[in-house]
Amino acid sequence: MKKFINNIDDILIESLNGFATAHTDLVSLHLAPNFLTRKNKAQNKVAIISGGGSGHEPLHAGYIGYGMLDAACPGHVFTSPTPDQMLAAAETVHAGKGILFIVKNYAGDVMNFEMAAEMLPFESATVLTSDDCAVVNSTYTSGRRGVAGTVIVEKCVGSLAETGATLQACKALGDKVNNRTASIGVALTSCTVPAAGRPTFDISDTELEMGVGIHGEPGRRRETMREADEIVSDCVDAILTDFKLRNIEPAENKAALLLINGFGATPLMELYLIYNTAAKLFNQHGIQISRSLVGNYTTALDMAGVSVTLCLLDDEIKQHWDSPVHTAALRVGM
Amino acid sequence: MKKFINNIDDILIESLNGFATAHTDLVSLHLAPNFLTRKNKAQNKVAIISGGGSGHEPLHAGYIGYGMLDAACPGHVFTSPTPDQMLAAAETVHAGKGILFIVKNYAGDVMNFEMAAEMLPFESATVLTSDDCAVVNSTYTSGRRGVAGTVIVEKCVGSLAETGATLQACKALGDKVNNRTASIGVALTSCTVPAAGRPTFDISDTELEMGVGIHGEPGRRRETMREADEIVSDCVDAILTDFKLRNIEPAENKAALLLINGFGATPLMELYLIYNTAAKLFNQHGIQISRSLVGNYTTALDMAGVSVTLCLLDDEIKQHWDSPVHTAALRVGM
Repeated sequence: MKKFINNIDDILIESLNGFATAHTDLVSLHLAPNFLTRKNKAQNKVAIISGGGSGHEPLHAGYIGYGMLDAACPGHVFTSPTPDQMLAAAETVHAGKGILFIVKNYAGDVMNFEMAAEMLPFESATVLTSDDCAVVNSTYTSGRRGVAGTVIVEKCVGSLAETGATLQACKALGDKVNNRTASIGVALTSCTVPAAGRPTFDISDTELEMGVGIHGEPGRRRETMREADEIVSDCVDAILTDFKLRNIEPAENKAALLLINGFGATPLMELYLIYNTAAKLFNQHGIQISRSLVGNYTTALDMAGVSVTLCLLDDEIKQHWDSPVHTAALRVGM
Repeated sequence: MKKFINNIDDILIESLNGFATAHTDLVSLHLAPNFLTRKNKAQNKVAIISGGGSGHEPLHAGYIGYGMLDAACPGHVFTSPTPDQMLAAAETVHAGKGILFIVKNYAGDVMNFEMAAEMLPFESATVLTSDDCAVVNSTYTSGRRGVAGTVIVEKCVGSLAETGATLQACKALGDKVNNRTASIGVALTSCTVPAAGRPTFDISDTELEMGVGIHGEPGRRRETMREADEIVSDCVDAILTDFKLRNIEPAENKAALLLINGFGATPLMELYLIYNTAAKLFNQHGIQISRSLVGNYTTALDMAGVSVTLCLLDDEIKQHWDSPVHTAALRVGM
């Protein structure tokens, strides 16, 4: 294992310190318990808090700022944060209108955010993201996993919250965006968790893992490596089949947001090549890609791989996707 | 070699098509010869054109847009673009005040941009970037290599050009930024050029390449893998020594921009850890990091590695670094 690290126990704190120092205009870092908040506390709005295991950067701390999150609670690498983190974050960012937790559907995260919600002295609600259509149950969870679609949920809900909307309205929008979003991932290599010191799974030079999770969890099947167009075609089919099985129909104009997300070690040149194929294939199915995001937005440490995410837009989602945002990893109009 | 590609000959065009489709609001793609331009042609300003081999994305096409480049000319992977590309791009974006080429100092790029400049029917000037302090001569060039500091040059010169400044003023600012910038890179793995099909160089699990170039060119020396803090300390020392040898003194307030650039396969978590150490070390040398950029801005395909870039700010550079920009890879205030 070759990584830019010092002591394995210090990776998280050193990285968080670097993040907070690099973005001192945007975020404040609080330690013991660990959480990050917006530099300037928002007033009179629902406070949006997310969190989860580290190793998926820029998720979630990279999305703290105007128009998105109020706070993020980072756990250790691929490990859930604990309820004291969410409680301390909530105490710090609560702005009079309740707390909305955005939680990726993994058993540890769900349990810890639930415990925090129960202990909170404020009104709260939770949006559980579950956009991964690859598998129904997985290593770390029962039910669908929450993956890169979480970024779209955080962007839209964060935008709505800035308008002074109620907790119920924010939760409803988050649930709607999650429901209208489907993702599937493909790995060419494993990631290596620093504390483990070796790859999470073995994969040969002629194989890929179709439907991989963002912690290297097994997907649908191990396949023989093929051309990008064939791999992307399978991803597009999986997403369209998922919407069909869930009876989610594209809106009349069939406008959609296409997110091509790198897992950490995939060159941008390949991500754009994948975008090219995916957009064409969705178009052939009558879906017009009118919004796009291409890059490393929900990573799995140093995994070479990609996920394809489609979010079926309506006017409300489009409006909140397009609205101003100022975070370390996403910036529009500010 | 496992990559998300189809036919090797089609990688560039498929990737460019994906880029242009994903950013249809920002750029137009022109083929045969290949170049990209701003969607909305700028008026009455110096036109800023860059280019170079592909594989360094988002450099350069990711920096096309208001406040940065007017056009970019992509060559094949790690191969210079040809003069017909620069000529066609210049014809398309010329806006009455001449053409400024920003060229990384590699022999092929320098020769081809020079040929284009000679044939141009417009007044032109060239800023050659040479921020890499690792080695004096290298595989693909004589003189210092241009690396991630090029992004800072493109941002500042692009900003000045928007004010209607003259060609001479734009070139002078570009030369100044380049002169006040130093970079050095470290590789943990090689990159793999698709057409070659195998890693550019061999490196063992216990080694790193100090001073590596963005095409995998050899650096200063092969070293034993060490803790991040030690590696970063050597990078910081190399940069400070370079400024000293070139008699470039930090300004009175010693404010600087620190760019921690991933080469393509390094997790963001590690880049922020590196930022944390580098910022501390520069501070210990009396340099105040007042501007930061952390992420994949000048990549080397799928290389695991990082470069550290320091740009010594003055009021003019700071103003142009902070100004609005709207490109695929950098966005501020728009």
